[in-house]
Amino acid sequence: MSTLPRKDLFDLPEGVIYLDGNSLGPLPKSVRARVADVIGAEWGTSLIRGWNDAGWMDQPGRVGDLVAALIGAPEGSVMMGDTLSIKVYQALAAALEMRPDRKVVLSDSGNFPTDLYMAKGLLTSLGQGHELRIVDPEDVAGAMDETVAAVMLTEVDYRTGRKHDMTELTRRAHDAGAVMIWDLAHSAGALPVDLTGSRCEFAVGCSYKYLNGGPGAPAFIYVRPDILDHVRPALSGWMGHDAPFAFDLEYRPASGVERMRVGTPPVLQMSALEEAMSVWKGVTMDEIRAASIRLSERFIQEVEARCPELVLASPRDPAMRGSQVSFAFAEGYAAMQALIARGVIGDFRAPDIIRFGFTPLYLDEDDIVAAAGILQDIMANRLWDDPAYKTANKVT
Amino acid sequence: MSTLPRKDLFDLPEGVIYLDGNSLGPLPKSVRARVADVIGAEWGTSLIRGWNDAGWMDQPGRVGDLVAALIGAPEGSVMMGDTLSIKVYQALAAALEMRPDRKVVLSDSGNFPTDLYMAKGLLTSLGQGHELRIVDPEDVAGAMDETVAAVMLTEVDYRTGRKHDMTELTRRAHDAGAVMIWDLAHSAGALPVDLTGSRCEFAVGCSYKYLNGGPGAPAFIYVRPDILDHVRPALSGWMGHDAPFAFDLEYRPASGVERMRVGTPPVLQMSALEEAMSVWKGVTMDEIRAASIRLSERFIQEVEARCPELVLASPRDPAMRGSQVSFAFAEGYAAMQALIARGVIGDFRAPDIIRFGFTPLYLDEDDIVAAAGILQDIMANRLWDDPAYKTANKVT
Repeated sequence: MSTLPRKDLFDLPEGVIYLDGNSLGPLPKSVRARVADVIGAEWGTSLIRGWNDAGWMDQPGRVGDLVAALIGAPEGSVMMGDTLSIKVYQALAAALEMRPDRKVVLSDSGNFPTDLYMAKGLLTSLGQGHELRIVDPEDVAGAMDETVAAVMLTEVDYRTGRKHDMTELTRRAHDAGAVMIWDLAHSAGALPVDLTGSRCEFAVGCSYKYLNGGPGAPAFIYVRPDILDHVRPALSGWMGHDAPFAFDLEYRPASGVERMRVGTPPVLQMSALEEAMSVWKGVTMDEIRAASIRLSERFIQEVEARCPELVLASPRDPAMRGSQVSFAFAEGYAAMQALIARGVIGDFRAPDIIRFGFTPLYLDEDDIVAAAGILQDIMANRLWDDPAYKTANKVT
Repeated sequence: MSTLPRKDLFDLPEGVIYLDGNSLGPLPKSVRARVADVIGAEWGTSLIRGWNDAGWMDQPGRVGDLVAALIGAPEGSVMMGDTLSIKVYQALAAALEMRPDRKVVLSDSGNFPTDLYMAKGLLTSLGQGHELRIVDPEDVAGAMDETVAAVMLTEVDYRTGRKHDMTELTRRAHDAGAVMIWDLAHSAGALPVDLTGSRCEFAVGCSYKYLNGGPGAPAFIYVRPDILDHVRPALSGWMGHDAPFAFDLEYRPASGVERMRVGTPPVLQMSALEEAMSVWKGVTMDEIRAASIRLSERFIQEVEARCPELVLASPRDPAMRGSQVSFAFAEGYAAMQALIARGVIGDFRAPDIIRFGFTPLYLDEDDIVAAAGILQDIMANRLWDDPAYKTANKVT
C-alpha cells in the first residue's frame, strides 16, 4: 500500500500546482515551528550555550546521515555545509591531489554551469597546466583516457533530465585510472542512488530541491569511507580541525568526514533542513521512483496529445530520465510566465526549455492532468503571445 | 543624549548577564517575526518566485550595504555569503594573484586559527613554493619585507582583545609592496572601522558576533572599489557570474562586488541578519565605542578590586583594545563554568583565558557591576574548585 502522496505534510498554496520542486522544494509544514523554536528557545534562550546544549555543533553530521540514507551511503560518509559550488571545489581539489601526474578534468556540456565554473576557477588558481575538457554527454565514456585525473559529472541533466549511468561511468572512469565525482543535485530525493555500489570517490549535492530544505539550504559532500582519512581538505577551516577549540596554530584534519567541514554551520538553515528530512520517514526511494515515472509518463502523454507545438526535450525512455520532463519551445519563456500566472509553476531554462519536476511526495495524477489542461489552454489560445509575458528573462 | 542601551530590542533571558556577544550576539526581538514571514509568506507561498518577488536574489548585496555602513565602506563594496573561512580564502587567493612574484603570506600568532588554516590549505594547493610566515603580533610591521605578497591580520585579537592599528599597518604593508587583508570578526559592530581610509585591499568578517545575525549567519567580504573589476574570483560560482541565468559554459565575472558571490545564498540566515541590522538605526559607532570603553574600564576596575587572582590579559589602555576584556587564570575553564551557572555568560579560550565582551546595545553599567560581584563570589568562595565545573573543555 502506497503512502504517497503525503500532501498534508506540506504547505502548498491554494490554486497552485507546483511542478518546480526540482528547483526549490515547498515548505514542509513542521519546519515553521521547528525554526521558530530554534530562534526563540535555542538562540534566544541558550545563546552561546546552544552549540552544545541544542546540538548545533553536531548537526551537520547528523543531518548528513539523514541524507546518506537516501543516496545509498553509509553513516559517517556525508557532511552538510556551505553551497554546492563550494562542495564541488572541495571534491575536485581533493581528487586532483590523488592523481598528481594527470592534468585533465573531464566533464560534459550537460553539467550544471557552476560545477564547470568552480572547476575552471580551481584549475586557474593551481596554475599547473590543468585543462578542463568538456565533451557532449554521450561522448564522456569515450573521452576517458590516461590523461584524465578526474571525471566530474551531474547524474541528471538540469535542462533535459537525461540521466547518466552512474555505476557504469564510474567503472569506466576507474578503468581509465581517474577519480570519479558525481553531482547529485537532481538525484538526491528524486530517484534511488547507490553511492556505495557505484564505488565513486566523491559526490556532492544540494538540499533545497527534492529534499525541501528551503531557499539556500546547505549542500552535502560524500567521500568514500576507505579514502576519507587520506583526503587533504583544501578548504581547511577550523570546523574540520581535529580539535577546533584547542585553537592550535597548525591545522590537523579531523578523522572521517568531519574534515570536510569548513566554517561555522548555518544553524537556522540546517535546522530547517533537518526538520524537512522528516517527510521521508517510511518512504522508500523505489516507491518514489515508481510514482515519479507514473506521473512523468502521464504528463508526457497528456501534453503530447494536447500541445503539438511542444517538443519533448527529455529522453522518452523513463529509465533514462531523472524526475523531470522538459519540452523545447521557442517562446518557452513567455509560455512559462503565462503558465505560472495560471497557477502551474514550472520553470524555464535558456535558450528554449520549459521544465517540470515530478515530486511524488506532494503530487498526484489529478495534479498532472490538470496542469496539462492549463498548458493546453495557454498553447491553444496563444497566451504566450501576450506581450505581458515577454518581459526580460528573469529567474523562473 | 545617548540612545544606549536599547535592551528592549533584544530577547535577553531573565537572570542572565550576557557578556558573550563577541562570540554569538543575542536575538533581536524582531527577527522572530521576520523569519516566520520569510518561511510562511515567502518560501511557503511564493515558492520559487521568492527569488524575484521577495528580493532573495539581491539580498546578499543589500545586506552587504548595511554592513558597509558600519565599517566605513561605500555602498557596493561589501558582499555577504558563505562563512568567514571561505571569505578569507577568497581574499587571499585574489591577493596572491596580485603579487605573482612574491611567495610569503605574513600573519601573526594572534590571528584566529581558521584564517591561518585556510591560508595554509590554499598555499598547499597552489604548490608554488608559498610560505605562511607567522610572527608575534608586535613583530608584524618589522617582518614586512619585499618577499611578502600579502599581509593577513585580524584587527582585534580573539583571545586578548589587543587591537592592531589598521591604518598604520596597512600603510606599512603598502610601503613594502604587499596586499593587505583585514579580518574584522571582532571589529564590525564593536568599534569604528574606516575601511576606505585604511586603503586596505580586502577585508572579511562574520556577522554572528557584534552584528547579532544568529548562529551561522553569513560572512562578509569587502574589496576596495578601485580594484574590484581586476580581481579574479578563485571561487567562481554561478552567483558571481555576469549572467547567472544565461547558463553559459564559460565563466564571466560580474562587475563589482557581485563577483565575490559564490553559490546560492542562505535566505533564512540572510533574512535573520537583515532584520538584525535594524537595531543599528540611529546609532553611531563612535557612540558605541565610547560606551564600550566606559563599560570595559568599569569592569576592569571592579574585577581587579574584587578578584586579585585574575590577571588582566588585555591591554590596559582602552585605545589598544577592541570591545572585550580578558583575564588569565589557571582554573579559567572551571571558573567560567561556575560563572555561567550563576547567570553571567562569558567564555573561555584555551589555555587559560576568560573572556568578556562589551556590547553597549544591550548592556549597562549595572550589568557590569553585578557581573563583577558574582565573579567575586565565585573567586572568593573557590567555586571554581568544585569538581562539577572541572569537566572536559567543551565549547563555551
